[in-house]
Amino acid sequence: MIKAGIIGATGYAGGELVRILLGHPQVEITWYGSKSYIGQKYAQVYQNMFRLVEDTCLDDQIEELARQVDVIFTATPQGFLAGVLTEEILDQVKVIDLSADYRIKDVAVYERWYGIRHKSPRLIEEAVYGLCEKNRESIKSARLIANPGCYPTCTYLSIAPLAKAGYLDMKTVIVDAKSGVSGAGRGAKVDNLYCEVNENIKAYGVGSHRHTPEIEEQLSLAAAEPVTINFTPHLVPMNRGILITAYASVKEGVTEGMIRSAYEEAYRKEAFVRLLEPGVCPQTKWVEGSNYVDVNAVYDERTGRVIMMGAMDNVVKGAAGQAVQNMNLLFGLPEQTGLLMVPLFP
Amino acid sequence: MIKAGIIGATGYAGGELVRILLGHPQVEITWYGSKSYIGQKYAQVYQNMFRLVEDTCLDDQIEELARQVDVIFTATPQGFLAGVLTEEILDQVKVIDLSADYRIKDVAVYERWYGIRHKSPRLIEEAVYGLCEKNRESIKSARLIANPGCYPTCTYLSIAPLAKAGYLDMKTVIVDAKSGVSGAGRGAKVDNLYCEVNENIKAYGVGSHRHTPEIEEQLSLAAAEPVTINFTPHLVPMNRGILITAYASVKEGVTEGMIRSAYEEAYRKEAFVRLLEPGVCPQTKWVEGSNYVDVNAVYDERTGRVIMMGAMDNVVKGAAGQAVQNMNLLFGLPEQTGLLMVPLFP
Amino acid sequence: MIKAGIIGATGYAGGELVRILLGHPQVEITWYGSKSYIGQKYAQVYQNMFRLVEDTCLDDQIEELARQVDVIFTATPQGFLAGVLTEEILDQVKVIDLSADYRIKDVAVYERWYGIRHKSPRLIEEAVYGLCEKNRESIKSARLIANPGCYPTCTYLSIAPLAKAGYLDMKTVIVDAKSGVSGAGRGAKVDNLYCEVNENIKAYGVGSHRHTPEIEEQLSLAAAEPVTINFTPHLVPMNRGILITAYASVKEGVTEGMIRSAYEEAYRKEAFVRLLEPGVCPQTKWVEGSNYVDVNAVYDERTGRVIMMGAMDNVVKGAAGQAVQNMNLLFGLPEQTGLLMVPLFP
Amino acid sequence: MIKAGIIGATGYAGGELVRILLGHPQVEITWYGSKSYIGQKYAQVYQNMFRLVEDTCLDDQIEELARQVDVIFTATPQGFLAGVLTEEILDQVKVIDLSADYRIKDVAVYERWYGIRHKSPRLIEEAVYGLCEKNRESIKSARLIANPGCYPTCTYLSIAPLAKAGYLDMKTVIVDAKSGVSGAGRGAKVDNLYCEVNENIKAYGVGSHRHTPEIEEQLSLAAAEPVTINFTPHLVPMNRGILITAYASVKEGVTEGMIRSAYEEAYRKEAFVRLLEPGVCPQTKWVEGSNYVDVNAVYDERTGRVIMMGAMDNVVKGAAGQAVQNMNLLFGLPEQTGLLMVPLFP
Repeated sequence: MIKAGIIGATGYAGGELVRILLGHPQVEITWYGSKSYIGQKYAQVYQNMFRLVEDTCLDDQIEELARQVDVIFTATPQGFLAGVLTEEILDQVKVIDLSADYRIKDVAVYERWYGIRHKSPRLIEEAVYGLCEKNRESIKSARLIANPGCYPTCTYLSIAPLAKAGYLDMKTVIVDAKSGVSGAGRGAKVDNLYCEVNENIKAYGVGSHRHTPEIEEQLSLAAAEPVTINFTPHLVPMNRGILITAYASVKEGVTEGMIRSAYEEAYRKEAFVRLLEPGVCPQTKWVEGSNYVDVNAVYDERTGRVIMMGAMDNVVKGAAGQAVQNMNLLFGLPEQTGLLMVPLFP
Repeated sequence: MIKAGIIGATGYAGGELVRILLGHPQVEITWYGSKSYIGQKYAQVYQNMFRLVEDTCLDDQIEELARQVDVIFTATPQGFLAGVLTEEILDQVKVIDLSADYRIKDVAVYERWYGIRHKSPRLIEEAVYGLCEKNRESIKSARLIANPGCYPTCTYLSIAPLAKAGYLDMKTVIVDAKSGVSGAGRGAKVDNLYCEVNENIKAYGVGSHRHTPEIEEQLSLAAAEPVTINFTPHLVPMNRGILITAYASVKEGVTEGMIRSAYEEAYRKEAFVRLLEPGVCPQTKWVEGSNYVDVNAVYDERTGRVIMMGAMDNVVKGAAGQAVQNMNLLFGLPEQTGLLMVPLFP
Repeated sequence: MIKAGIIGATGYAGGELVRILLGHPQVEITWYGSKSYIGQKYAQVYQNMFRLVEDTCLDDQIEELARQVDVIFTATPQGFLAGVLTEEILDQVKVIDLSADYRIKDVAVYERWYGIRHKSPRLIEEAVYGLCEKNRESIKSARLIANPGCYPTCTYLSIAPLAKAGYLDMKTVIVDAKSGVSGAGRGAKVDNLYCEVNENIKAYGVGSHRHTPEIEEQLSLAAAEPVTINFTPHLVPMNRGILITAYASVKEGVTEGMIRSAYEEAYRKEAFVRLLEPGVCPQTKWVEGSNYVDVNAVYDERTGRVIMMGAMDNVVKGAAGQAVQNMNLLFGLPEQTGLLMVPLFP
Repeated sequence: MIKAGIIGATGYAGGELVRILLGHPQVEITWYGSKSYIGQKYAQVYQNMFRLVEDTCLDDQIEELARQVDVIFTATPQGFLAGVLTEEILDQVKVIDLSADYRIKDVAVYERWYGIRHKSPRLIEEAVYGLCEKNRESIKSARLIANPGCYPTCTYLSIAPLAKAGYLDMKTVIVDAKSGVSGAGRGAKVDNLYCEVNENIKAYGVGSHRHTPEIEEQLSLAAAEPVTINFTPHLVPMNRGILITAYASVKEGVTEGMIRSAYEEAYRKEAFVRLLEPGVCPQTKWVEGSNYVDVNAVYDERTGRVIMMGAMDNVVKGAAGQAVQNMNLLFGLPEQTGLLMVPLFP
């Protein structure tokens, strides 16, 4: 059994890690870390875990944890892990970081968008960006995984097949994203109160959302050219789910058939990316609670643009599920182990 | 492997049966029956099953089905199964009926509340009421299971410990129930449109809901006296979940401690009924997607009444989950097989 | 023009007061008080008021306010008004208090249920309980109005006709209430986050909700006997709306016709209470945004109980709307002035 | 008093017309037309109107209606009005059509996108496109108003100031739209059931939505050049509201200040278009139930694109409110008469 510790187990992503790992046949959670609920029973913080988890929340002591477990998941605020992670820890334990601390290779970019000084920039180089479908092989031998952001995961998987095929004019990429409210976390803020979100939709972080450089970096790698995009996230009145609607002009000579083939080839062997039948638009509800990403594209010959769509559960494939997928790769397990949850409908 | 056929696989309860059985290690679904979608791919009706189910919907031919499978689940409108079920079918196959056709022992009561003539009243006697926590032993040797209604399941489990202990004045029992919209089925009706249900709550079927006699029959058995109740269901703007708030006067001499003890004893060994800590009120979200029922009670000494509460996922423990629990009992499997889904939160 | 000041203008009830008073032909709001947003533009706190309100939030200085306006509305936490209200203020200005400070005549009961020492008990006697349909005449000449709680308003109007007619066994009254989330206020609390409330229903304050003694006092007056009830509120995933489902045994000899007549007589002349057609159950959506209360009752002869139902917008008739109705009475205006908003559907 | 008749009074737009006209000081509704509910009391179809409307639904007889009223509103399926409208009717009565029949000047475009043969193409020329902020003067003297679609209204008002100023590269315009469910109408369809829409978001009609040519025609007029766009609508789990997020590259030399000024100039005198403070993103909840459209724009210098946003209540400014605004213009009333509803929050 793999012994797992979670730092930040009482946020929504932490809670989902617990849900998934409880169903994982090879993992035992031995440390439920929490800054806000130390000493409280975990099942009092998440009553759905009543009788399923008997443990009490512990302090976030990463050094002690490193001695006790095989893998640490950190579902913590930006900057936390960068401030405490050391070579010594990485010598003892695998670390899968759900925060953004090690996702962006250029530390200056990170510091500019996040407004934080990075405290362990030397480790950025070593960290592997844990988008499993992209970096499967390098993940297997990593010590430190930068688990991707929710928007970047869904955006990348929606666009990458065409970007890699060289079919898109990358200067024209626009990403319009929609997310459920769990992405905003469990902190008590007026903006996330039921009455403020319900019966409402808005854009936020227009031109300034922190996932922008992460998406750009990954798309640049896919397209093998520097990519700058517009990324506009919206808050949707639902708990879970991310929907990406991305637009780009296709290059001269690219046909609908070529577009379809690019997706088919990219995802033929992927367990968690489902290319929908032609004409079927992804819906977040069809993937809720699962690790699937549903993608599809529509070519609009009137404008010469392709509309690329992807739907995903932001808490699963966009956070905890992908973290477990990374863990499976790190420990040599079949990638789907413990992740075959069937989407919940309705 | 147990071969299972589902008649009515394209309703919400049928869809949930598929979800649960796909994760069951000992079952293979070999027949997806549907009146409305014959010849269509099942995964087009429920897109969440894309790539998980390759089958096409078949006609609802119970006789053919009886020859091919080991167990038939019927998630069909009232009266359907009563009209087609025969001794010959029951000789060949176990039948678990999610409709109300065989739940009520007194056929006259059934016919009055449902407004249908029962076409196979001889089989009512044989049918076992599939409330597993109540009838576990008789279920094991049955051929025909009447899977309980959603409201009756949650109501019974919330009240029965005190009714059996003889602590309640059964003439005073009032059940105020709240349900998500999936209980109303997938039929296209104006009343169940998003805009009619959202931002709204109403009572319905006041004094006339068909689950009333089913609840009364089961509570009568628990209390060993004839029971007549008020039952008022309400429609709540959420997909899943049932919450029961039941009221009754307690008999002279009954104390808070005795009440607690009655629940503790009743559910100490039950896998799927969770008696919450004193003072914690059940919430439907804490059991969503799972087979758990969370119960608790508050004794109000000002009025001498006990408020009994229960929360459950109406599609799981209230329908498909309990049906699978019954199947496990019928086939000698551990009762929890395939049913340990952790509740989804948020 | 009546000059109005609002203390606590930035809570949900305060915001609704502003919405309603902006449409009132005889009122001008001259003071937007707020503890948390002093110095901020009101329209930045409530962006729906952009270009409709140009004012800036002011401190909650009741003495200064008393000199400047004709009526003060206080939509403040329990205990605030009791701590600052004086005879001098009441000599200068009418006060309509949306908090509970002056609703309960027995100060000991108030202090026990609210856990606060009442700082101006002498003024309780003078205060008039502002349930307009009940105390219309005494309101007209009052200086201090205790605007009723949301649950008490809806409960009283649902039950009172039968209680006053002497048709109910008052010892059997049980009130099961359901409320939207705006009743919980705009404070940032984890329990009221979107993800915690959405797709969820729960009871809360079982046996201990503070509106219980207020309901009991008013029903005691209606029935002319001391009344003790069970009151169980539930939190429903919707912004606005309260639904009451109340149960009581009717006395020997009371018929369905007598019940109907009692309601008809009670509400024949009432502008804001709509007795629905027989058999139609109230729905909160049918009154949203309006000052109406929809009521109806079903007599269940199987149990000899009557199920009394009422639906209301908790922020309007349950708070701001009723406050304006009281203001109209205080200033000799037609009671419906500014309150004829048509319910918003869908 | 203006006598008004409504054909299609029992759809959501028809219901909203009733709500608004009940509060209009100069209008009396004398005909509630309905195909599906003839002979039923209107208040039984829309229970919110109980005691506010005593009328019974009448047949949709436009010729009879033309003799009885001053203005006819048609909130009917595509093709209906085109099939029955005649010169004789227009000689007797003003007609405001909420369907698409007379919105698009090129009948071939209409027939291609709607898949219907237009039965009265001669009248298209005469019809005035009733976007009040654009065609105010020509509306005043019209007989037949083509009330704009919901998406086109919000899109046009969000983009037009920059299009008219010549600041946008019109070949790059992309419109990503989000709508509440009321836009789908009150017809009973599985896709619009609560359980199918709740906790879900999807794109629909990608590349093929019928509002596309209407938007293109109006933007072409604004920009004085032929415009082809991408338009992608999404279905959001909320009753009301449309949010537009539109993208375009700005021309060389256009600055943030020029963009702001273009909006300021365009809307300085407009009663119903609110240009938000710089940096504030529109939210649909801030305009719910009102005739306002909130707009704003963000210039992203990294990409040289401007993100143009607009929020509106689709049933009000997107349908019934704008129809009443048109009626006010037609009858020489102040444009805001009966339309000053304050947005409902929360």
